[in-house]
Amino acid sequence: MPRYRLTVEYDGSGYNGFQAQAGQPTVQGALERAIAAFSGQRVRLAAAGRTDTGVHATGQVVSFDLDRAWPARTVMNAMNAHLIEEEVAVLDCAEVDPEWHARFSATGRRYLYRILNRPGRPALDLGRVWHVKKPLDAGAMHAAAQALVGFRDFTTFRDAGCQSASPEKTLDVAAVTRVGEEVHLAFEARSFLHRQVRSMTGTLVEVGLGRWAVEDVAAALAARDRTACGPVAPAEGLYLTGVRYDG
Amino acid sequence: MPRYRLTVEYDGSGYNGFQAQAGQPTVQGALERAIAAFSGQRVRLAAAGRTDTGVHATGQVVSFDLDRAWPARTVMNAMNAHLIEEEVAVLDCAEVDPEWHARFSATGRRYLYRILNRPGRPALDLGRVWHVKKPLDAGAMHAAAQALVGFRDFTTFRDAGCQSASPEKTLDVAAVTRVGEEVHLAFEARSFLHRQVRSMTGTLVEVGLGRWAVEDVAAALAARDRTACGPVAPAEGLYLTGVRYDG
Repeated sequence: MPRYRLTVEYDGSGYNGFQAQAGQPTVQGALERAIAAFSGQRVRLAAAGRTDTGVHATGQVVSFDLDRAWPARTVMNAMNAHLIEEEVAVLDCAEVDPEWHARFSATGRRYLYRILNRPGRPALDLGRVWHVKKPLDAGAMHAAAQALVGFRDFTTFRDAGCQSASPEKTLDVAAVTRVGEEVHLAFEARSFLHRQVRSMTGTLVEVGLGRWAVEDVAAALAARDRTACGPVAPAEGLYLTGVRYDG
Repeated sequence: MPRYRLTVEYDGSGYNGFQAQAGQPTVQGALERAIAAFSGQRVRLAAAGRTDTGVHATGQVVSFDLDRAWPARTVMNAMNAHLIEEEVAVLDCAEVDPEWHARFSATGRRYLYRILNRPGRPALDLGRVWHVKKPLDAGAMHAAAQALVGFRDFTTFRDAGCQSASPEKTLDVAAVTRVGEEVHLAFEARSFLHRQVRSMTGTLVEVGLGRWAVEDVAAALAARDRTACGPVAPAEGLYLTGVRYDG
């Protein structure tokens, strides 16, 4: 039974998150309908990251099995034809080893958080950036973010509904850069807690606005207390940009 | 009577072009309604570029008069509040000399054409890029584009409905660059003929796909014949990015 890996892009604005839910528009639902439409098979796919409502992806990775060995290019083209009414696109498709799994084989996830930092509201990127009107000090945000890098207890930056067994994770990269009118926050880790990226981003924005000192972020982390977290950044600026697989 | 200059961004997808038309959604209509909503005045505004249906702007410039001298920041904030349901945003507002005119004072217009050049269809930038699946040779496109730079008769690249007095224009810049998965075409001139940028872009894409030789673009220009033009690129990839004013 051949297994396929897809790289998927989506605009999360119109979806109740990635994960399939009966009666709700979801990215998983759209993908599974497209698979059924060309193959006649109802599959349940696995995904590297279960993004929340309104969160986007440029590099989500999913896997699933089909009974018949369709050429990978056919799977991609057929799915894109059936996704034409959706804001979901298949960017790449490959046949993979039946042991390979989009979620369990992943060894790293990369997220990008985009802030539009100008007085005027977004028109072209409405729903695809967080609009922060007041000027952000990206350098201070980057400095503060370094306190989060390494093996840490991220209880402060963890959503109350998070189902992870442990709040301890290793954050490999936290980089804040200004890109024209935008401030970009890039994060990389093997895995993240629920709402961790948005919790860290919202907190770092407090530093960027000058409301928090750089040292306050390290103190919030050390508190290991959800109430020490800054405001959680909205979903609309968040992108799952890539997934790492070793070997 | 104070005159105002606005810099405006919009997603042209949902509008029948910039110019006001009774009973049609237009960018001008949205802006004029927002002005009326806060000031009570029905104005007719002037714009640097009258973009077609589906064409976007990150730097459109408009001007209009109000009876009362509102602070520029108030005009911007009030308009953005009334534009909240529109895909139009005011990025900047300033009071200007009553002699100044968004269209007649302009000495240069800049356009960007964005091509998404990858096999997979766009999800996040659907309606905001032209999707060309086959690989484009951006270097060949740039080389061919240089034949268009200078004072030229652009009859070949002029829409049948163009109302300009003369087909002769000076193209100052035509630059084609690859930016990741995208190919960007940047054009600058004092003014452009109707559909000139999309006509030049569609023709240069023929070069990028290897269907035309680099020299064929110069030959098409020299023909001064609309039928010598390549296919016209779709509206969705085109952006008015800026307007130049001297002094």
